[in-house]
Order: sequence, then structure tokens, then C-alpha cells
Amino acid sequence: MERDDAGSLVPRRSVLLGAGVATGALLLAGSEVSPSVAAASGGTKRITLYAERLPGDLIGYGLAPGKASVPGPTIELTEGQKAEVTLVNTTDQTISLYAHGVDFDMASDGTPLNNGTVAPGQQRTYTWRTHAPYRRRDGSWDGGSAGYWHYHDHAMGTQFGTDGIAKGLYGALVVRRRGDLRPDKQFVVVMNNGSLNNTYWPNSPTYEARLGERVEWIAIGHGFQVHTFHLHGHRWSDTRTGYATNPSTPVIDTKTLLPGVSYGFQVRAGEHVGPGAWMYHCHVQLHADAGMVGLFLVKNADGSMPPGMEKHVEHMKTMSVTPMPGMPSSMGHGH
Amino acid sequence: MERDDAGSLVPRRSVLLGAGVATGALLLAGSEVSPSVAAASGGTKRITLYAERLPGDLIGYGLAPGKASVPGPTIELTEGQKAEVTLVNTTDQTISLYAHGVDFDMASDGTPLNNGTVAPGQQRTYTWRTHAPYRRRDGSWDGGSAGYWHYHDHAMGTQFGTDGIAKGLYGALVVRRRGDLRPDKQFVVVMNNGSLNNTYWPNSPTYEARLGERVEWIAIGHGFQVHTFHLHGHRWSDTRTGYATNPSTPVIDTKTLLPGVSYGFQVRAGEHVGPGAWMYHCHVQLHADAGMVGLFLVKNADGSMPPGMEKHVEHMKTMSVTPMPGMPSSMGHGH
Amino acid sequence: MERDDAGSLVPRRSVLLGAGVATGALLLAGSEVSPSVAAASGGTKRITLYAERLPGDLIGYGLAPGKASVPGPTIELTEGQKAEVTLVNTTDQTISLYAHGVDFDMASDGTPLNNGTVAPGQQRTYTWRTHAPYRRRDGSWDGGSAGYWHYHDHAMGTQFGTDGIAKGLYGALVVRRRGDLRPDKQFVVVMNNGSLNNTYWPNSPTYEARLGERVEWIAIGHGFQVHTFHLHGHRWSDTRTGYATNPSTPVIDTKTLLPGVSYGFQVRAGEHVGPGAWMYHCHVQLHADAGMVGLFLVKNADGSMPPGMEKHVEHMKTMSVTPMPGMPSSMGHGH
Repeated sequence: MERDDAGSLVPRRSVLLGAGVATGALLLAGSEVSPSVAAASGGTKRITLYAERLPGDLIGYGLAPGKASVPGPTIELTEGQKAEVTLVNTTDQTISLYAHGVDFDMASDGTPLNNGTVAPGQQRTYTWRTHAPYRRRDGSWDGGSAGYWHYHDHAMGTQFGTDGIAKGLYGALVVRRRGDLRPDKQFVVVMNNGSLNNTYWPNSPTYEARLGERVEWIAIGHGFQVHTFHLHGHRWSDTRTGYATNPSTPVIDTKTLLPGVSYGFQVRAGEHVGPGAWMYHCHVQLHADAGMVGLFLVKNADGSMPPGMEKHVEHMKTMSVTPMPGMPSSMGHGH
Repeated sequence: MERDDAGSLVPRRSVLLGAGVATGALLLAGSEVSPSVAAASGGTKRITLYAERLPGDLIGYGLAPGKASVPGPTIELTEGQKAEVTLVNTTDQTISLYAHGVDFDMASDGTPLNNGTVAPGQQRTYTWRTHAPYRRRDGSWDGGSAGYWHYHDHAMGTQFGTDGIAKGLYGALVVRRRGDLRPDKQFVVVMNNGSLNNTYWPNSPTYEARLGERVEWIAIGHGFQVHTFHLHGHRWSDTRTGYATNPSTPVIDTKTLLPGVSYGFQVRAGEHVGPGAWMYHCHVQLHADAGMVGLFLVKNADGSMPPGMEKHVEHMKTMSVTPMPGMPSSMGHGH
Repeated sequence: MERDDAGSLVPRRSVLLGAGVATGALLLAGSEVSPSVAAASGGTKRITLYAERLPGDLIGYGLAPGKASVPGPTIELTEGQKAEVTLVNTTDQTISLYAHGVDFDMASDGTPLNNGTVAPGQQRTYTWRTHAPYRRRDGSWDGGSAGYWHYHDHAMGTQFGTDGIAKGLYGALVVRRRGDLRPDKQFVVVMNNGSLNNTYWPNSPTYEARLGERVEWIAIGHGFQVHTFHLHGHRWSDTRTGYATNPSTPVIDTKTLLPGVSYGFQVRAGEHVGPGAWMYHCHVQLHADAGMVGLFLVKNADGSMPPGMEKHVEHMKTMSVTPMPGMPSSMGHGH
């Protein structure tokens, strides 16, 4: 046993698992860890999310009034931690907050079917729990809560939140395992009905990092279209984290991303390729052509721009795209 | 060596693999196991499937006359076992039986191209073999037959069985590895052209389990649409079984499910979340809105319903959906 | 340390990883291998690709004038090797060469946005590097370059090469790890906008192997449609290579294949099933019906055909398909 940040006792087994030594863990005798104890060990994060209307017919979640964005703020927990998230609804529509990946009672299943919604002007607190991996009494392993998850509306327009999601009520939810590497930068890309975070080139997000920085990409699929997330100049192991522990694991640079699916990975900016303006885009041709593309600018390690790059990026931004029928060429967005 | 249920000798290596100790297995000297011997060791299951018309323009497979259902019965084998499946065609169309994942000679490739069909009023026996993992002489591992597979028509309407599959000629095929955990409950969800097992809410299947029961979900994609299977309140390791052996394996709660793909996993009902009415649904927004949603009712461990839950579920069933153009709001189905 | 083919020193760690012993590798002390050194150790392959117009409004890459094909030639590297690929553009359109998975400076990012294109009548050399897996100083593993990758135009018609890809400017790029098994046969299937390598049944490729030969399949998705690659009579582990090292890895016979995604695996021809005419096809029903199907002929081990098989295959070729609206029933292609 050892003490975690919050001073609680946690089983050494989870620590071993966190370090990536599966076979070692398998040799240990199994013992069932009470999830409630595990949750208690990590403390509780208290968060308030304000749902607000934004310009361009968007709606976003934000951590304070006037701070809503699309996507909403990334919520981060470590396995064992609990979150109490209060949703304040400043819109004129009934909305909700539904989370993927974490543990919650029926009362926090933010759906109309389970009466988990919030009427205009009202608020409600949802409780999310997380837990570390452990071996069950039947010998099977529970894989824990760590992952690149997401949260979103599940009520507006339809009981599945189709309108709320279309307008921007979504965000990333990261649950880390003790021992996971922390990123220097974190980028969230939501491929939502043919848009990137409800924007299109040249208004799509430009992300920046210095050469060698550990960058975390979180890619989330939403809506009803089919997308593939491709990043130029970088590749990663198709694992929980993006870094490998097994040579039979595929290394990829393009990930299928359908609605409801979330995925994340870490890379080191410009590793093996150097600084530059690297594109990320949907690899479905018509979607890329229609503006599902953005830039990842990798600067020199000292933060300076390689010679000529600034001008080059300015020129890039003048390139045109061909919006798909029914799609605006750009939409205002809140961050 | 040790004796299996059928009293045959099986190589201890497969048992080790079944227990999840890959590295141990890799240390063993390789030796090629004859597949035919492996097959013989498990005995033969003899099954008769009757294809029958059902109300609502459906057609199903069943284990006896008058017992056809959509999906058909789940067929279960253990690695090393063989199945002789006789298809009796009581319909007025030429149909077939095609299986994924298992081993068969050309004569059992149930396709028109290989003359593997069954005319109206006729019958035909297909032979399927399975085998445990083993190391080939070239050092590579054959991964064995264990998996969540499926069977379906490959002849009606078109040479790929497009009409037969559309009408319900499909089912799950599970091949287990020695040492795999057995479920208490087993649910099959076929996402077929925008339906769940050719039904829509509120006629979609309601599945039930008691808190803590080991529940096996088998999800199969069919037709020509794109789906993602999402289950509320539960998550699982993205492995062959759903339970983890490696901390770098992603844990997921939503799985991409395209036509022809089958997938399965085990969870413990209500683990970390408690009893309740948990939805499973396609996460493509328009599909969920159109009725690709069902309920997973997790009762208390003693089989009782939590207070008020019965009324709540009754109320849930009154919620409405918005059928997609060309889709009926509900279809009769046979189970 | 040991010497590779080129006589250079390579760290024994990569060799261990190549042999599939992840946990052994994890026990070794980490040390950062300079990527440039790793690249230098493998030598450089110099390749010239000629882009040419082909009959049927196709365009292909080829290793010599008059030798263009769809797909283009498969380019193969071993981790540590570098490639200098000169693209000679004999067409009347601006095109480019963009590679997935390998390492390159901005100057070799073959996109209009990075000025990486080739005007008609011009040529340009792209440099691709590869590297073996290694442990970074932060403890994480870089998974190496090995994989079933692909290359394609990124300029013609649109800045994402939508027209170039539609017309056939694509091919496979394989990076092997030391210790990987070499195939006896290699087949490339590109599912491109509802076609197989821009062809449809009965003009789709027929692939042949002898019973027991190690066959490598490389499947690439392109265009804007959704496909699933299914192979009859064979199954493989869903790993980097298709052969397994871990019993929790799913074994599959159908793989989701969206645009921009590449995937490969090795099987032994006819293993467990014997010789015969096995179909490979897209499992999206309308796509299969429209001709996204081809044959994999597994002959006897001595190269002879099983009795009656030749006639059977001839008969198969007379079967008809139902082209989807807007698709020709067949297209000429260049190989």
C-alpha cells in the first residue's frame, strides 16, 4: 500500500497496473477492492457548468457566466476521484449533462427518460465517480475509469440531445491513471456533423506547441456523419494513451471517429519531423474539401517561429474550401 | 496435457493462453498442433435450423419448426468443437447459412458462388470447425477461433443475401476459449439498417439482469448503415472478452459497428452504478431519434425492483420517437 | 548489439521488441535512441515514381514510364531505412505524393498548403525516414514506424487530392520491423468510393496463392464512402501484423475501413479450410451487390487446381451485379 496525493491508502496493485506491467499484476493474488472506498480515496472535485447561448446560434458550457465555449471546458479527474458537477441552465430550452465513461447512479444519468434534465433557469448537480483497475473475485479485471471520455447534452430537441449537440453542448472528459504522463498542451477536436468544433476552415482552431512538447489530442465524434481524424507529421500507438507498451499494437496516424465515440492520444510535437505547419483534417475527401481542416503549428523548442513560417501560415489561411450543400462556410464560435 | 470436458487430451499451452498469460506462452517451445486433432478433441454439436416466414414480412432461423426468431438462436461452441448445422428451408425463396469466424471447407461456404444455397423445401448440412490458439512452425501464433461471431443468409435477393439479412436471417455465433468466464445472461443486439433486431422503440428488446450478474452483450452490424453501440452506466475493456489484461487497452462505452462486423463483451450488471433502467442505443443522433434505443433493466441482487422503477419504466415506454423516412415506427418480430 | 543487413549497429532492444516480447523490453533500462542515427543505420532506398494517365480516365503511379498501375507499386521499407522518392509528373495536372506513417520534414509534406506539389512536366524528390521503437527519456515508448501505411496524391482537383485519389493516384507503403515474417504473396485492396482498386466485379482483382503460403493483405480506404473488408475462409488477429501474441486480442474476419485508414495482416492461404475460391468483399450490402467483390483462389500446395475448380471459377465470373446509381459496372484499370 502507499499513500496517494490525498493521503489515502490505495492498493499497490493499481499502481503496478498504472505503470504498464500487466503480467506482473496477473501474478498477484486477486482481491476485490470496494469501488466506494476507491472513490473516497481521491477526493471530490466541485465544478459548476453554465449553459449559455452564444453568437451564431450556438450554445456552450462554461465554467463561469459569460465564459461558455464550444467545446466546453475539458474536465479532468484522476482514477479514484469524484466530481460533483452543477449544471446551471441560462438558456430557454430544457437541457442536460450526460457523461461517458464515469460511474453514476440513475439520478445522474442526464436523460429525459431518467428525469435527469434541467429546465430553463434551473440547476441540478450530477455526481460522477471513477475507480482504478482491480481484479474481481471471479478472476476478471475491471479496466478502471481512465480514458478520453466526453460529456454532452442529452435532452435538447430530442431525448438524445440532437439539437443541443448540434449547437455545441459538448466537451471532453479526461480520466487519468496514476503514473500517466501529463501533457504540456491539450487540444480537443470535435468532429460534429461535418465541422471541427462547429467551425470550418479558415476559422477552424489553430493549435500551437513547441518542438518536443508533449501534446494531448482528444478527438470526439458527434452528430450523424462519419469522420476519420488524420494528423500530418505525427503517428501514435493505438492504445489508451498513444504511447506503446506492446510491439504488436498498431501504430496509426488516422482514426475512425463515428458519433458518440471519443479517443485520445499523446504525441511529442514535431518528433522525427521538426517544426512546421502540420494539418489535421477529416480524411473523408468531401469533408476535408468542405473545410474540416485545421493547423497544428510546431514552433522551435525556444518558442520562436522557423524563418518564413509566419508568412507561410498567413498565406495558407487564404486558401479556399468548397462547403458541402447545407453547410455554412464558417460559423462563429465561442473560444 | 490435461483432459477437457469431453475427455480428450488438449495441449496445456492453449490452457495457459486461455488464462491470459501471453508471455508465459511465448517462452514455450513452439509446436504445430494439427487443427484436425484439435477439432476432434472437442466433439461435435449437431444443430438443425429451420428458416421460416414470420409476421411483419420477416424471416427467421429457429431451432424447431414454429420457433423462428429475429435474431435466430445464438449458437455456442468451445474451441476444438465442431458443429454440423442442418438448414431446413421452409420458405419459398432460395436461402443459405454463412458463418463468420469458424473453419469450413468450400462445401460449407454458404454462398451462391460456391453452390452453398438451399432451395425452397430443401435442406443442407454445413460443417463448422474451431481450433485453439497454437504456435505455428514459423514462430507466429494462430489466434484460435474464440470470438463473438455471427451467421447469416448469403443468398436471398442478391448473392450476398441482402434481402435475407434485411428480413431477419441472422444470429450470433459464440466460440469460447477454455477458461473464459461464462455469462449469467446473454443479449444479442443486431443493428440492421437503422433497427435493433428489426424493431424500433418502444418495441425494441428490453433486457433484464440482477445487480452483479455477468452479462454478455453481442452486437452485430448489418445492412448498409453506420451505427455506434452505446450502453449507459457500463463500460468495458476493448478486448476479445470485455475484461482486461493490459493497462494500455482502452476502456470504452461506445463501439463502432458497421455492416458485417460483430463484437461482444461481458460486464457485470449495474457494477459501480447500481440498479436502474439503463438505455442502450445507437449514438448516431438521427438513428437514436428514430427509435434505435432499448432498455437494460438492472434489478436488485435479490430480483426485486427498486421502489418506483416499474412505474418509471412504464412511463418511459410512452415516449415517442421520430421515424426516419422509409422506416416503419415499429415492426413485429418473432421473440 | 548486433549487425543488421547493412552492417550497422542496431540496439538489441529493438530486436527484442520485434520478436514480440514487450515485457522483457520493459525491464530494460530506458535510453533514447537518436532517430537520425536509427535512420542512418538502414541505408537509403532511391525510387522514382512516374505519374501517368491510363485508359478509362484513370491516373496511376509507376516505377518506370509506361508502367503506371492502380494501385501504384507497393513501396517497402524496414525500420531504420530512408526513402528518397522522386515523383515525375507526366500528366497535365498539378499532383503530389503524400505518405502516411513515415517521418518527413515540411518540405516533403506533399500538400499544396506546404508547397509540396509537382506541376505538369516537373519532378520533385520527397524524403521519408523510418525508425525502430525506442523508449523515450520520459519513460514512454515510441512505437516505431512499422505498419501497413499508404501514399496518395494530395493536390489534384482539391488541396486534398480528391480528384487524384478518385482517379487512382494511390498505393501501399509497408514498413517492416526486423524479425517480422515476410509474406510469400502480397495483395493490395483499395476500397475507393465503392470500387476495389477502381474496378468492379467481374473485373476486380483475382488473387492467387498456394495452400499454406503466407499471404499479406493490405486494405486501404479512400474517397468518401464507408466500407468493411471481409475475407471468406480466413481470420486473423487484430494486431499490427495479423498474428497474435496476446490471447485477449480479438480475432476478426471483417475490418472497418473508412477513408484514409490503412490496415494489413498476414494469413496462411487456406489454413484450416483448404483450397478453393474464397471471396473477399465489402460487407456493406449495397456495395457488395454493386460489385465490390473479388476472388482469392487458393490452389493445392503443389500449385495444381483442385478438380473442377477452374470451371467453377469461370462460371462464377458470369454472375451479375447491380451497379449503384452513378457507378459504372466496370472500369478499365492498369494492372
